[in-house]
Amino acid sequence: MEALAGAGVSPGVGFGPVHRLVGGVPTPPADARHDGDAAAARRTALAALERVAAELASRGSSAGDEVRAVLDAEAMMARDPSLADRVTRLIGEGMAPALAVHRAFGAYREMFSAAGGYVAERVVDLDDVRDRAVALLMGLPMPGVPLVAEEPYVLVARDLAPADTAVLSKHVVAALVTEEGGPTSHTAILARALGVPAVVACPGATAVPEGTPLLVDGASGVVRPAPTAEEVDDARRRAAAREAALARSRGPGVTKDGTAVPLLANIGGPGDIAAAVAHGAEGVGLLRTEFLYLGRRDAPGVREQAEVYREVLAAFPGGRVVVRTLDAGADKPLGFLPSAEEANPALGMRGIRMFRHDPGVLADQLAALALAARNAPARLDAPARLDAPARLDAPARLDAPARPDAPARLEVMAPMVSSGADAAWFKALCAEAGLGEAGAMVEVPAAAVRAREIAEEVDFLSIGTNDLTQYAFAADRQVGALAGLQDPWQPALLDLVAMAADAAAGAGRPCGVCGEAAADPVLACVLVGLGATSLSMGAPALPAVRAALARHTVEQCRAAAAAARRARSAGEARMAARRHLPDLDDLGL
Amino acid sequence: MEALAGAGVSPGVGFGPVHRLVGGVPTPPADARHDGDAAAARRTALAALERVAAELASRGSSAGDEVRAVLDAEAMMARDPSLADRVTRLIGEGMAPALAVHRAFGAYREMFSAAGGYVAERVVDLDDVRDRAVALLMGLPMPGVPLVAEEPYVLVARDLAPADTAVLSKHVVAALVTEEGGPTSHTAILARALGVPAVVACPGATAVPEGTPLLVDGASGVVRPAPTAEEVDDARRRAAAREAALARSRGPGVTKDGTAVPLLANIGGPGDIAAAVAHGAEGVGLLRTEFLYLGRRDAPGVREQAEVYREVLAAFPGGRVVVRTLDAGADKPLGFLPSAEEANPALGMRGIRMFRHDPGVLADQLAALALAARNAPARLDAPARLDAPARLDAPARLDAPARPDAPARLEVMAPMVSSGADAAWFKALCAEAGLGEAGAMVEVPAAAVRAREIAEEVDFLSIGTNDLTQYAFAADRQVGALAGLQDPWQPALLDLVAMAADAAAGAGRPCGVCGEAAADPVLACVLVGLGATSLSMGAPALPAVRAALARHTVEQCRAAAAAARRARSAGEARMAARRHLPDLDDLGL
Repeated sequence: MEALAGAGVSPGVGFGPVHRLVGGVPTPPADARHDGDAAAARRTALAALERVAAELASRGSSAGDEVRAVLDAEAMMARDPSLADRVTRLIGEGMAPALAVHRAFGAYREMFSAAGGYVAERVVDLDDVRDRAVALLMGLPMPGVPLVAEEPYVLVARDLAPADTAVLSKHVVAALVTEEGGPTSHTAILARALGVPAVVACPGATAVPEGTPLLVDGASGVVRPAPTAEEVDDARRRAAAREAALARSRGPGVTKDGTAVPLLANIGGPGDIAAAVAHGAEGVGLLRTEFLYLGRRDAPGVREQAEVYREVLAAFPGGRVVVRTLDAGADKPLGFLPSAEEANPALGMRGIRMFRHDPGVLADQLAALALAARNAPARLDAPARLDAPARLDAPARLDAPARPDAPARLEVMAPMVSSGADAAWFKALCAEAGLGEAGAMVEVPAAAVRAREIAEEVDFLSIGTNDLTQYAFAADRQVGALAGLQDPWQPALLDLVAMAADAAAGAGRPCGVCGEAAADPVLACVLVGLGATSLSMGAPALPAVRAALARHTVEQCRAAAAAARRARSAGEARMAARRHLPDLDDLGL
Repeated sequence: MEALAGAGVSPGVGFGPVHRLVGGVPTPPADARHDGDAAAARRTALAALERVAAELASRGSSAGDEVRAVLDAEAMMARDPSLADRVTRLIGEGMAPALAVHRAFGAYREMFSAAGGYVAERVVDLDDVRDRAVALLMGLPMPGVPLVAEEPYVLVARDLAPADTAVLSKHVVAALVTEEGGPTSHTAILARALGVPAVVACPGATAVPEGTPLLVDGASGVVRPAPTAEEVDDARRRAAAREAALARSRGPGVTKDGTAVPLLANIGGPGDIAAAVAHGAEGVGLLRTEFLYLGRRDAPGVREQAEVYREVLAAFPGGRVVVRTLDAGADKPLGFLPSAEEANPALGMRGIRMFRHDPGVLADQLAALALAARNAPARLDAPARLDAPARLDAPARLDAPARPDAPARLEVMAPMVSSGADAAWFKALCAEAGLGEAGAMVEVPAAAVRAREIAEEVDFLSIGTNDLTQYAFAADRQVGALAGLQDPWQPALLDLVAMAADAAAGAGRPCGVCGEAAADPVLACVLVGLGATSLSMGAPALPAVRAALARHTVEQCRAAAAAARRARSAGEARMAARRHLPDLDDLGL
């Protein structure tokens, strides 16, 4: 069998027999009727729903914030009282429990689909809940991923539901391969968070027969069915070298010639702190704050938010915590913010734009951040006094090394900044709230092109490569078939990063990168060569990036960056850069 | 009353009393019943639907292609047999005709909404048809625009339906002002096509009381309620100067110092040819070809398409016709092309991307274009021989002046090109079809950033400023509230245009602009200063652009462009550019 090629999205090498994810559970026969005891049938049906709910909730409790939110929502669907009413009514009409459950979900399915946008995408979760309950009631194997296996297997699927990926561990799953999804898709981000090698957007993967040995390179994206013993040995040797090198990777980020490049973690809530600390993050480069707002009727209060921010700040004494203010939009409408149906929510009223006319919710968030900063403890064991005086008047130099005896430094940045005017407005709002360090994300292409005038208005820039790539190539990161365009190695993306970093340097401002691009150790070196002054990524990627940086000088990184920009495709750029980064080989990268 | 500010989208000055577009027709009472003669009630209801259909169709027949397509679709809705069945059934249940018609539309409305995307946006058309029929049946005034008035009025609305704008003429309507819509919205494009001054995205406009005199400047976007006599006189003087200057504007596009800048028309089908010729277009800079494909079960055949292309070529002997190949996407799914639900169709599988794996439909289009080019007559009176030999081996120099004794030169360009690889692929496909001149549109920001490698693969570039602005600012042009970001005067957009034009010049290729930006006479000068070698726009804008170019040298245009790029906002850029273009004043611009 020929090798398959996809997008490598979670580095590492995996080898094992193919296990294809079971497809859908069959629809119960349309004439399935219960035996006449409606009360017993009702109890059976509702018990199955409750068992599914309990299992989802328990899977969720052992998962990270992002996954937990999805699984909790699925559990809520299974426990919805009007779903139970519907099931009871259908059983009252004589339907068998499995059929009644299947039908009862139908109405929700239509409503979800009709709602469009984010809600419509949740149909996949709804179907997951339904299939689990129906499988239970029909005595079929539960759909999803085997939780134990004799040897680690390579999980192959068209795409994965969050419930599937939540229970994966690298002890059971050697690698993930999906036919759909892009490098910044949900599946890809979760795979990296779990540290499982993964290749997405890999056509033909589901056609590989069950049990075929599969060798997966999550860096290059090459998927080799039935490899030779030599190929496997070579890959394993590289993987072992990588593991050994990573195990030795410690301390703050620094290049071979001694330039500090703080290595930070992207986190989605306090639940991700532990992994960030475990992987040696020097702080948080991107705290997404949407988790505080989603699924609520009213915006969270200032004190409530401040407690959460304080928890994050407390975890990184002497480090920094960069908080991205709320990035809501039409794809995830919030009840307390105005919203309209939009044909293209990614190009709509989102990020800072939403608050230019009515800053209320954003002003509250900034007030909460200021309150948390005033009360950030210097060390975890030093309890904060909620009324300690503000000490923001003399902030430490940005990108200065962490001082464990100092409190974490809070920096706040706005998403979807398009112009100097946006940046100046945000800086003023932060100053009004008493926040000293305000920055702008560079994720709209126009912001990269005009980065100089933005940098002059704020204290730092942070490049969000995921959205910047999406907009620069007009390629939605949710569309797997456009994965080639979403590759952050595209020379056009590197040009835009260089524009932003050069402009920031010209204005005397630091410029970090907080997109998933920073999680690729080779690309991380290139980003530093382009002028990035700090890198933030999913925590499991930190050791490999730290090791790669430690083996190369800034001059080598610059040469790699220049070579990559001279290339004419993402693939050429990666190869060209590697030639200037000779010491990646012993990392198995 | 204070002046209001919006986005000026169709230049010219209009003055007249406010006429606010009537809102919705009331819902018929839920208990409205007919008098017992169901057959008579049915005849009444169906006659009203037919009268609405006939009126819409007749409005359509006097409109341009784009408007006609919408109105014909509305007429078809009114004549839909299953709608009639539904009405008949409801009348059989005793409902009055108006109520039955209102209810019958309800089911369609839900289906349209549930379909999402382009179809869901058509709910506004459906409501328009329903309201017209219900108004007829309830004896209420027909909703929409008064067709005659004692003096020209300024039409003010939240937004306009196509049926409203289709019947507007500048003899009845002095100007249009809407609260919603962006500079590249449907309403804005139609207003320019009609030559009616228009301001969109103007908050507070609908609060101006009926009958208030309103002075509208469709260039600056300023809307002045109850202006002084002096203000009106001044505006009228400028408008008169403009009219006089435009009336003198003739011949090919050329700067004051003699540099030819071919002025071409954007057209949506053969129905737009007459206006292009009447306004002196030297050819077509953008023939959108979607009209050939929309609303069909199968793709159009090669011969059928070739006839249409030949008709366009025949209208511009000695000129050029630039055809954009099919730009389909998930927002307007076509039955004969694969399509998937997409959360953001503008960032999805569209344009050339759709054909990289399966070029079938595109290859047919190119074959049709080649067939048409082989048979293009040199003059309208010289009938083509369908088997004349190809004469594409020695194409004239691009941007050479038109030669009326030669046939029109056909150039073909691909939408949504992202890279040199896309461009090379398209060029090869064109060459295979026997087409000599193949170009790439620059509308994806990455294409502007890497224009050099794209220009080296094809024969010309054409910048689509509408989409380029939309992507560069991540601002959907359908979202009126983001109009500020959609302004093509944004310095970031000017930078991207300069990147593309410089790269094209470096590769020795011409670089046109075919977005709506070219229709602004001031911006047109700036675009020439940035390096645009031809300009294409909606036909009514041609005289003003021709006049503005004729009054300024290339050097002045370059100075204006440089000044605009040094600005930090769209407003500043426009003011800075004007200072270098002193002879716009006598054009009333």
